[in-house]
Amino acid sequence: MTGDPVGMHRVLEPLGALPQAAERLDTDPLIRDDEVRVRVQRLNLDAASFRQLEHKHGGDGAAVRAEVLEIIGRRGKMHNPVTGSGGMLVGTVEEVGEGSPLGLAVGDVVATLVSLTLTPLVIEDGLVGWDGLSEQVPAAGYAILFGRSIGAKLPEDLPMPLALAVMDVCGAPALTERHVSRYAEPVVVVIGGAGKSGSLCLAAARRAGARRTLAVVPHQAEAALLEPTGLADQVLICDARDPVALRDAVAAAGGPADLTVVCVDVPGCEGGAILATATGGTVLFFSMATSFTAAALMAEGLGKACEMTIGNGFVPGHAELALKLVRSDERLLARFSR
Amino acid sequence: MTGDPVGMHRVLEPLGALPQAAERLDTDPLIRDDEVRVRVQRLNLDAASFRQLEHKHGGDGAAVRAEVLEIIGRRGKMHNPVTGSGGMLVGTVEEVGEGSPLGLAVGDVVATLVSLTLTPLVIEDGLVGWDGLSEQVPAAGYAILFGRSIGAKLPEDLPMPLALAVMDVCGAPALTERHVSRYAEPVVVVIGGAGKSGSLCLAAARRAGARRTLAVVPHQAEAALLEPTGLADQVLICDARDPVALRDAVAAAGGPADLTVVCVDVPGCEGGAILATATGGTVLFFSMATSFTAAALMAEGLGKACEMTIGNGFVPGHAELALKLVRSDERLLARFSR
Repeated sequence: MTGDPVGMHRVLEPLGALPQAAERLDTDPLIRDDEVRVRVQRLNLDAASFRQLEHKHGGDGAAVRAEVLEIIGRRGKMHNPVTGSGGMLVGTVEEVGEGSPLGLAVGDVVATLVSLTLTPLVIEDGLVGWDGLSEQVPAAGYAILFGRSIGAKLPEDLPMPLALAVMDVCGAPALTERHVSRYAEPVVVVIGGAGKSGSLCLAAARRAGARRTLAVVPHQAEAALLEPTGLADQVLICDARDPVALRDAVAAAGGPADLTVVCVDVPGCEGGAILATATGGTVLFFSMATSFTAAALMAEGLGKACEMTIGNGFVPGHAELALKLVRSDERLLARFSR
Repeated sequence: MTGDPVGMHRVLEPLGALPQAAERLDTDPLIRDDEVRVRVQRLNLDAASFRQLEHKHGGDGAAVRAEVLEIIGRRGKMHNPVTGSGGMLVGTVEEVGEGSPLGLAVGDVVATLVSLTLTPLVIEDGLVGWDGLSEQVPAAGYAILFGRSIGAKLPEDLPMPLALAVMDVCGAPALTERHVSRYAEPVVVVIGGAGKSGSLCLAAARRAGARRTLAVVPHQAEAALLEPTGLADQVLICDARDPVALRDAVAAAGGPADLTVVCVDVPGCEGGAILATATGGTVLFFSMATSFTAAALMAEGLGKACEMTIGNGFVPGHAELALKLVRSDERLLARFSR
């Protein structure tokens, strides 16, 4: 029997909800034709989720562990009800349905690039190997991937923590590449260029044909980190929440931008990003602190005919692209190894 | 002296804020080279703003009027501090700076298509002609347009209320047209197709070459309103907040959509819009109830490689396009005249 590609057949309650919105998922190990079962080796809890649990239990690791087990047991997925977030997992493919479109084979070591908040999960070892004191959770059990889930093979030539760090943010460089290629030799500005996601976007922009790449960072310490890597043609120290300062800094450095990529999780960057972008340009928002209404109203209020794109973390081939970028650039590799 | 194109030179406090975010604007009637001064005839208060004031004062029109005067006097703009919204105005061009790029001439009757929340405004008649009981405010005074403001000439062949209603939502059909033209004979779904903005988007989609247009409406009454107009090839009655129902209804009617346009101001439509859209398709969000994070996380969680665009209300030529659509379609004209 073939499942629903997004896993609706695994939703126990409320019926009709998407798996991510569901209260409880069906964790039956018997897979449907288009599903994959993964033997779990490790969970990476979302940072916000782990911090919430750690704080709630005053750093008592055993209590954190007990609550994680309770959540997974009750919901059939690691979906922190307070933060709404999950994380990702690493495991080995155990069984592949004949109709699975994921291209995985038994024995492949994979990371799930969809959130744990929608992944059916069973823990079988009581998490005995975990002290409850870090986001990295050694675990034994299994998880189910749907037809539309994303499981990426871990590369064998890179250390696992480095590969995971790259894969965690791999949607941003892939979408950046796609947007850069729509312009002829564009100027690309990356706000938050010194971060993981930002530095990958800078590398992706150059590879995709950007004429000039500008990185915006908040202070000298980040500039000192980024400048020696040469990932940006120029590093601008500027508060991205100050719209006119950002506009002027970008203009003075060869702007306005044809493409502005917002990679910092700080509220209030919409106006500056829009102002720093040329008419006919695009603002690509990856920051989860982006306000939809602020972006829409400000672009209209500023009379700026630019496109504004919500950063979709899924782009086909995104993990491969990000890993290729890191492999082909020693300075980026060093940045991620640190 | 030339002003800042977005009006930063008119911000009195806090310095560095954009005019929309500012507490107080400079209403000096002396215009800069790139500004335009408009003699005000009428304000159209934003519906949310008027409702808040009406409710606060228990329907006492004189008190509402006094508060509107107080806000405009204090802030130099009609920017309701509770709702954060403004409205638009109609007036006659009084003076045009030589460097103004707006293409307006003295005597033109214009509507401002940027919000009153960023438009310097002075009221000179104490709003004596207004009873404080409706959003339509007869007024005498002046307003300032910046280099980047948008002032559209009112057409002479259409009644003013009809023209204003069309211009109020003109960004949506213009952006719809642009996106339709990126696909070859696309299937276009408009969620909220019976509304003002939705019906214009349907007309724009067909004109731009859509192969098939589908309108989604919540109940039979709206379907009965829309069906006779022929604006959509098919009208689907479906709760857009139910993702699977929406996906299946669109699929059964010739979907998935290459372009899905979300025009209903109801929260929770992100998942359905994404699911109803084909891989490689685009979701265009015009609803101010759209959640940025819900859209981003759901697309990733659903493994759906689609583009998601924040509806920018400003597209060059948007008012002209919307008026042309209404003029060229009697049923649309009838829809807006009602």
